[in-house]
Amino acid sequence: MAHNLVLYVDSNYSSPYALSAYAALQAKGLPHTLQALDLHAGQNTTPQYAHASLTSRIPTLVDGNFSLSESSAIAEYLEDAYGAPQYARVLPARPQLRARARQIQAWLRSDLAALRAERPTTVIYADKNPQPLSAGARKAADKLLAAAESLIDTNGGPLFGDWCIADIDLAVMLARLSANGDTVPVQILKYVETQFQHPAMQGWWQRAKQAMA
Amino acid sequence: MAHNLVLYVDSNYSSPYALSAYAALQAKGLPHTLQALDLHAGQNTTPQYAHASLTSRIPTLVDGNFSLSESSAIAEYLEDAYGAPQYARVLPARPQLRARARQIQAWLRSDLAALRAERPTTVIYADKNPQPLSAGARKAADKLLAAAESLIDTNGGPLFGDWCIADIDLAVMLARLSANGDTVPVQILKYVETQFQHPAMQGWWQRAKQAMA
Ligand SMILES: [Ca+2]
Ligand SMILES: [Ca+2]
Ligand SMILES: [Ca+2]
Ligand SMILES: [Ca+2]
Repeated sequence: MAHNLVLYVDSNYSSPYALSAYAALQAKGLPHTLQALDLHAGQNTTPQYAHASLTSRIPTLVDGNFSLSESSAIAEYLEDAYGAPQYARVLPARPQLRARARQIQAWLRSDLAALRAERPTTVIYADKNPQPLSAGARKAADKLLAAAESLIDTNGGPLFGDWCIADIDLAVMLARLSANGDTVPVQILKYVETQFQHPAMQGWWQRAKQAMA
Repeated sequence: MAHNLVLYVDSNYSSPYALSAYAALQAKGLPHTLQALDLHAGQNTTPQYAHASLTSRIPTLVDGNFSLSESSAIAEYLEDAYGAPQYARVLPARPQLRARARQIQAWLRSDLAALRAERPTTVIYADKNPQPLSAGARKAADKLLAAAESLIDTNGGPLFGDWCIADIDLAVMLARLSANGDTVPVQILKYVETQFQHPAMQGWWQRAKQAMA
């Protein structure tokens, strides 16, 4: 079972999508190498990387001769190629729960733009944004919190019984608020704190801090 | 095999994501009802719909007691719940091709914002936008065309041998340019024209035109 997995990420470790792909690899216990690209220096726009990723985006997973971008597609690919029971699941086993996890992943990648802009992931490990949320970002935050409250139970445990990759994605989105000091319900704070104990989270934000130093 | 499938879509039929979910249902030959919501009148913000969709977004599929939003999650759910060989596939069978299709779906839903804004899907069935693309939208268009050219062959056939749901998504994104009269390579024009012959496309844009009348 020799693998040849490489994950290309941004050298600031600020992308929640790179983190998500990294967490999927970690959760499956798949040995891999992280390759950090400096996006500001255009290291993602070389012809070689553009060819590998198709879209010059990070993250990109390289598995032997195959390369793939988009973190949600990477999680699915790993689930297909390195499936249970030999490897841990990163999506729920039950179809309806798996569907809900995919919904959350797709939603967090295509909505809430104002919130993402005003609360970048840097608020999690570096400077906070003291500005109150704009009306648009407030609306996005309220939508996020309402959905999260309907999904999260009082013990802060995973959304769907067993941990899944959507827990990483949702916790990071919520931490844009909680880490910045924006008010969030206590139940959500507990969920974020619990999910941030995941080893992939710990390792990732440590790298992000080091990259800033 | 009595199904009770309902798909909530926007009453303008302008959402490429609603079309994508509709095409997945059509491709599988699953009997369903379309329910059109007037988003401008806030019909997606009722408590009942917000509960069903979690995020007040369209499309939302209702399958008996289960409801689900996000078109890519809907396609995956239909693939899980109404799988081959009884029902046609909407994603490629081979893992690497399925992964690539998922990449395209995720990419088209989370990138190219300037292009989407300046070339809304209304250019496909209603007024064109005579304004040249801004620098940002031009860059997005070039990125789209480069990726498409690397995926599309000269006969205009499906991306991955057999038709899949990513063909709908990519063809609609490309049609934002070609239908508007923006220059696209002939190979891409052929692909778009071929994919627009899919029955789901024909039915959808007809509804869109009728909704405008
Ligand atoms: Ca740095
Ligand atoms: Ca739980
Ligand atoms: Ca209308
Ligand atoms: Ca082909």
